[in-house]
Amino acid sequence: MINRNILEELSPLFSPRGVALIGASGKPGKVGRLYVDRFIESGFENLYPVNLKENEILGIKAFPNVKEIPGDVDLAIILLPPGAVKQAVKDCVSKGVKGIVINSAGFGEGGKEGKVKEQELVRIARDGGARIIGPNCLGIYCPASRLPFPQGPSMDIGKVGIISQSGSLADHLALVATSQGINFSKVISVGNQSDLKVNDFLEYLGADPDTEIILSYLEGVVEGKRFHELTREISERKPIIVWKCGTSEAGARAAATHTGALAGSRHVWEGVLKGNGVISVGSFEEILDCITVFHHCTLPRGNRVAIITGPGGPAVGTTDACIRMGLEVPGISEETKLKLNKAFPSVGTSMDNPIDLSIASAAVPEIYKDVIKILDQDDNIDMMLAIGSGGGPFYESILEVVEEVEKPVVGCVMMPLETLLEGYNKLGKNGIAFFPDPVRAAKALAKLAEYSNFRRSL
Amino acid sequence: MINRNILEELSPLFSPRGVALIGASGKPGKVGRLYVDRFIESGFENLYPVNLKENEILGIKAFPNVKEIPGDVDLAIILLPPGAVKQAVKDCVSKGVKGIVINSAGFGEGGKEGKVKEQELVRIARDGGARIIGPNCLGIYCPASRLPFPQGPSMDIGKVGIISQSGSLADHLALVATSQGINFSKVISVGNQSDLKVNDFLEYLGADPDTEIILSYLEGVVEGKRFHELTREISERKPIIVWKCGTSEAGARAAATHTGALAGSRHVWEGVLKGNGVISVGSFEEILDCITVFHHCTLPRGNRVAIITGPGGPAVGTTDACIRMGLEVPGISEETKLKLNKAFPSVGTSMDNPIDLSIASAAVPEIYKDVIKILDQDDNIDMMLAIGSGGGPFYESILEVVEEVEKPVVGCVMMPLETLLEGYNKLGKNGIAFFPDPVRAAKALAKLAEYSNFRRSL
Repeated sequence: MINRNILEELSPLFSPRGVALIGASGKPGKVGRLYVDRFIESGFENLYPVNLKENEILGIKAFPNVKEIPGDVDLAIILLPPGAVKQAVKDCVSKGVKGIVINSAGFGEGGKEGKVKEQELVRIARDGGARIIGPNCLGIYCPASRLPFPQGPSMDIGKVGIISQSGSLADHLALVATSQGINFSKVISVGNQSDLKVNDFLEYLGADPDTEIILSYLEGVVEGKRFHELTREISERKPIIVWKCGTSEAGARAAATHTGALAGSRHVWEGVLKGNGVISVGSFEEILDCITVFHHCTLPRGNRVAIITGPGGPAVGTTDACIRMGLEVPGISEETKLKLNKAFPSVGTSMDNPIDLSIASAAVPEIYKDVIKILDQDDNIDMMLAIGSGGGPFYESILEVVEEVEKPVVGCVMMPLETLLEGYNKLGKNGIAFFPDPVRAAKALAKLAEYSNFRRSL
Repeated sequence: MINRNILEELSPLFSPRGVALIGASGKPGKVGRLYVDRFIESGFENLYPVNLKENEILGIKAFPNVKEIPGDVDLAIILLPPGAVKQAVKDCVSKGVKGIVINSAGFGEGGKEGKVKEQELVRIARDGGARIIGPNCLGIYCPASRLPFPQGPSMDIGKVGIISQSGSLADHLALVATSQGINFSKVISVGNQSDLKVNDFLEYLGADPDTEIILSYLEGVVEGKRFHELTREISERKPIIVWKCGTSEAGARAAATHTGALAGSRHVWEGVLKGNGVISVGSFEEILDCITVFHHCTLPRGNRVAIITGPGGPAVGTTDACIRMGLEVPGISEETKLKLNKAFPSVGTSMDNPIDLSIASAAVPEIYKDVIKILDQDDNIDMMLAIGSGGGPFYESILEVVEEVEKPVVGCVMMPLETLLEGYNKLGKNGIAFFPDPVRAAKALAKLAEYSNFRRSL
């Protein structure tokens, strides 16, 4: 069902030979300046600023019109006021541009009249062999081809692909996630979807060999049936995580004015998503938590968690949360108990699950490493959630052990931001799922197990 | 029903004239050393280390036995191995100590035999006019009287009181909350509750004029009827926030080995708590979020929220979350719309609720200040949730306006940890509720409105 040609068709948009920035500016505070800054930082080579009045912007030769650019231009980003967009699209078509990102707002999100204007732009573009992303969007962030986003997320290449009906959400998410060690293949802000739609990019990311995890922020989807078919087919190979918004009446009203989307009821959505193995999330942090486990962990063989903890109290609440989310916190095997007691005769606290290392965890943080290795051999356990009393030595212990074990291991502490920052730098950026709250970790592991169950049910 | 004498009775424990640290040590890595360090840092004046072999510990005169201390000792903290605790309790009684914190584990949490031993300690203490906190606990953190906790939370005095069946949870919570600008009156780690129990401290904090918000981490409660009566009575004057753990079967098993508590079913608990106006939370971060709004905000007059946002996407999901949590996101009044359009003719995006400031929020962050002032006058709105596109100027704008308005205002951004740290320093530490995720802010505001509704229903 998936059209493999979509990779070829959209390739010039994701790996453009040249980019025209129409409405580029050198003036601080202008959005056109922001984009030029970002392209310079990202190191993209063939950038062509387009500005009626300037010959040069921040040291780069500028052109009065896209048509006068000598080199090949596959992608144009239009940053003009809405009234000037139509002529710019015509010029792009004349130049032979393949993809046109219309950043400008003031079209379909405003109502019927705007929708008509949008469709006129689409007709001009399609007649000339070009595709439109937007209007009212940020377009594409693609580290591999040095295409930047406004907030300047890192240019490290990763395996998460995002399709977002909110540009700002995608931009914030890319910024925060990369700061925590999660990197991206392609991020697409689709805006009003006048031409290229969520479904097109879903198909694209489904086929894209560089994308292993797909995340989508949705307010509504055109062509529900195709969305249903695509998620079903792609979920069999890659996890799809969705934050579906606009599910309340007031939220739907907000979505309509935001991107002109028809939101649809929560009920219908949840059914479609769950049946297709799609992972549902409900907040910015839940997205982060979810892509964290999918990014760093292998899929567990089942839903049985071992909780290994220094602080005792949080283990009780974490156990409750695991159970509530559909995970199991089984007793550990007699064989494992023997091994643990032999290895740590003096711990003296609970050696069942949760495994409470108590004060020993602070005095001898290497204990985590040894316990995790022992539990990796226990057939009753599918994944491990380790809670530390503090930062440094706990992080070191987890970092050392994760490469030696097969099962998913996540680490968490409940500490001030400075210590969390150290955790993201030491664990997150070294491929280990790290959380500032064990209940959040439990919820994320439950999503991982849910998808793993779906895959095993196929 | 509340016994006001409890303030007098427990006063020596919270404001001791002298503290004996039995098992104090100068050796790095020892728990006895950790406590001496913390007391030195906190600036507590009459500390008496007790150690059989040392005459002086870190420059402080040490005594071989608590009985030989010349000054008054109201509080003793016993850090000895379990076998040595009984004699130490006897010595404390001889000295006339009023409160004995037994940090040592190895008692009631281990089973019947330990419970018998515990009760013997209680008998010795009570017969000698002393009370016991613990065993298996951290005792008291009280900034006003310079009593420290092991992780060293700040000694700034505040209005939140905590009663926790987990010492580590209380310790982590105090550390993280103070780093975000929330300070404490008294924090009590009750451990096995052999003598003084959750209910005693609930009664104490209910009567304590320095405590305005009560937070309790519970695994189980002795005397459910009294807990029911106390929460009912205190809730009418002060919010009580509870994280009740051990509600799942596996969680109850963990709770039993952790503090020997009988956990009780989730169902029964939720009924009791809700009926008494007690606010329920389910994770470490939810505690933080909840005490953040109760600490910084006045109670709203109703449950109608205005969402003021820079980034558009998150506003849609935040609206959904508000509705799901029982808040309303009403349209704003015609009068307010006129005021907003007059003040910001060029914003051009949605001026209904959520109020989408779009790109203007980044270019002119003072816009938040003006919009918040206008909404403070709108009778349809009870509280405000402001979402920023980035850090600095957004923080400044919120900081400037909060003192000028009457309604609760919370701020949030979705940014990397460095920017969040700035937010906690600029907003949290200046009395403004700040969140790293707008959905978390919405949930916290819903709790605040829930309690406000309870108070208005009385």
